[in-house]
Amino acid sequence: MNKYVVSIDFGGTIIKLGLINPSGKIILRSQIFTKNFYADKQKLINTLIGQIFNLLEEKKIIKKQVSGIGIGLPGLIDPQKGKVCFLPNVPGWRNIFLKKIIEEKTTIRTFIDNDVNMMALGEWKYGAGKGYQNLICMTLGTGVGGGLILNNKLYRGEGFAAGEIGHIPLNEHGPGCNCGGQACFERYVGNKILQEKAARIFKNKKITLEEVFELAKKDNTRAIAFWEETGAHIGRALIGVVNLLNPRLIVIGGGISRSYCFMASTISNIIKENCMKTQGAMIKVVRAQLGNDAALLGAFVLVNESI
Amino acid sequence: MNKYVVSIDFGGTIIKLGLINPSGKIILRSQIFTKNFYADKQKLINTLIGQIFNLLEEKKIIKKQVSGIGIGLPGLIDPQKGKVCFLPNVPGWRNIFLKKIIEEKTTIRTFIDNDVNMMALGEWKYGAGKGYQNLICMTLGTGVGGGLILNNKLYRGEGFAAGEIGHIPLNEHGPGCNCGGQACFERYVGNKILQEKAARIFKNKKITLEEVFELAKKDNTRAIAFWEETGAHIGRALIGVVNLLNPRLIVIGGGISRSYCFMASTISNIIKENCMKTQGAMIKVVRAQLGNDAALLGAFVLVNESI
Repeated sequence: MNKYVVSIDFGGTIIKLGLINPSGKIILRSQIFTKNFYADKQKLINTLIGQIFNLLEEKKIIKKQVSGIGIGLPGLIDPQKGKVCFLPNVPGWRNIFLKKIIEEKTTIRTFIDNDVNMMALGEWKYGAGKGYQNLICMTLGTGVGGGLILNNKLYRGEGFAAGEIGHIPLNEHGPGCNCGGQACFERYVGNKILQEKAARIFKNKKITLEEVFELAKKDNTRAIAFWEETGAHIGRALIGVVNLLNPRLIVIGGGISRSYCFMASTISNIIKENCMKTQGAMIKVVRAQLGNDAALLGAFVLVNESI
Repeated sequence: MNKYVVSIDFGGTIIKLGLINPSGKIILRSQIFTKNFYADKQKLINTLIGQIFNLLEEKKIIKKQVSGIGIGLPGLIDPQKGKVCFLPNVPGWRNIFLKKIIEEKTTIRTFIDNDVNMMALGEWKYGAGKGYQNLICMTLGTGVGGGLILNNKLYRGEGFAAGEIGHIPLNEHGPGCNCGGQACFERYVGNKILQEKAARIFKNKKITLEEVFELAKKDNTRAIAFWEETGAHIGRALIGVVNLLNPRLIVIGGGISRSYCFMASTISNIIKENCMKTQGAMIKVVRAQLGNDAALLGAFVLVNESI
């Protein structure tokens, strides 16, 4: 197991690659702009393979020293079959046996999984979740995703689609969601929804969530209230999750987790006030620690747990 | 493993005992009325032990032929420490090391756990959940409980309190629940709530849910609507659970599951219409099969999985 791993965080905008040494340190990085290859899947795969070899060559690592390639992708992945079922934000990526393709071209064992699962694995082994057995990672972005570590193991669900914390309904009736449901948690705290809300509150169509964060730092009352209200939705979404799964820890990451300091006490208070006694007494909510490297480190964990 | 098990389903009203043969058949039964012993815990434990020996003697089973005693109890149980933390409906049962007590008095290995977890184990191995790897058992009664089988294993949670499906909020705001939360699923479909609702609808304070079931069988429109509305709450509570855990099966048991036939299509429709594509396509909802024997058989499974 004392070997190097090539980790890949395959995003809709950027694909990040990292060469990780046996102790879990990213020693070399590179990246690809996904959009340049929207028209040509094959070219993207070839470029990816080229970069994998570049990373290894640059550090003079030979194949024997590599335990595997780990790839996290933003969509539905079948890790057993090594199949990318569907990537909602990357055109044309559907039913691709990526594991086999990469293995054939590199002769290096390859493992693929969903990127939020990767983030959960990363935070669990190297970040905020170190040492915990039962934890939930949540990413707050355009979408709201989740990864579940239960009984010291990533829980993937029957069809590898578990963890969709963003699609727990907050109410029996409410605004329609892209997923086909209604009143989904994501419908209250997804980036686009929050931006629209901020535009209304600040009567400024162009305001960004970054700016609302900066305003809150300057004690702007409406900005602070904005984040507190967002925290209230997050807290209320977590009540059911905590009662159902009795985890020890919830790790919150993703873009708006930057504003975590303005949401933290609201989230904690709502959980403490509303969760059942046993569950509420032991739950901790913290901010993710690994930032943009979570998925790369998670892919390292994936490889090491799989071989 | 080819041995007998003494299973005990410890209820707030009745304690049921069963001697189970190596192939999982209940070959002898007995029971104790819990209320007769509310004043005296020690007497209850002695009576329980007496009945355990009675069962074995009556069938001429010697200790060597017994792999263990399994006990399901209605409350928070620590199966690792063998401790009954708290039974909300049995006075005085708090922080009792029941496993140790029974083992000392019988010299038979003993395992204890929550009764809804037992029901889930029973339905999983011998009932509606046979052969499934990821399933959720739900009991609809005075309270609404749940047991989670994930990755082919009972998932208990960090503090052994997982599965509280009845305390997932259906709305961000709503009626207060005994648990301290608000708008909990149980607050919409718990027996007492349903009885009060039936009393209002049928303008009859004494009407029972049994009678509402009989009325529905006779095509009474209001009774049918009553069960459909109950099914709608159940379906809406399950959306989030199905999206989050991506199980293959949901097993519905408990008292009002008798009316399952009047709720089934509403539950299924709501799930199919609102759940995410992958999760919704693979989920099946069925009625529990083992009825009152589920927890006894589950205790048999608990013993066999633990030794």
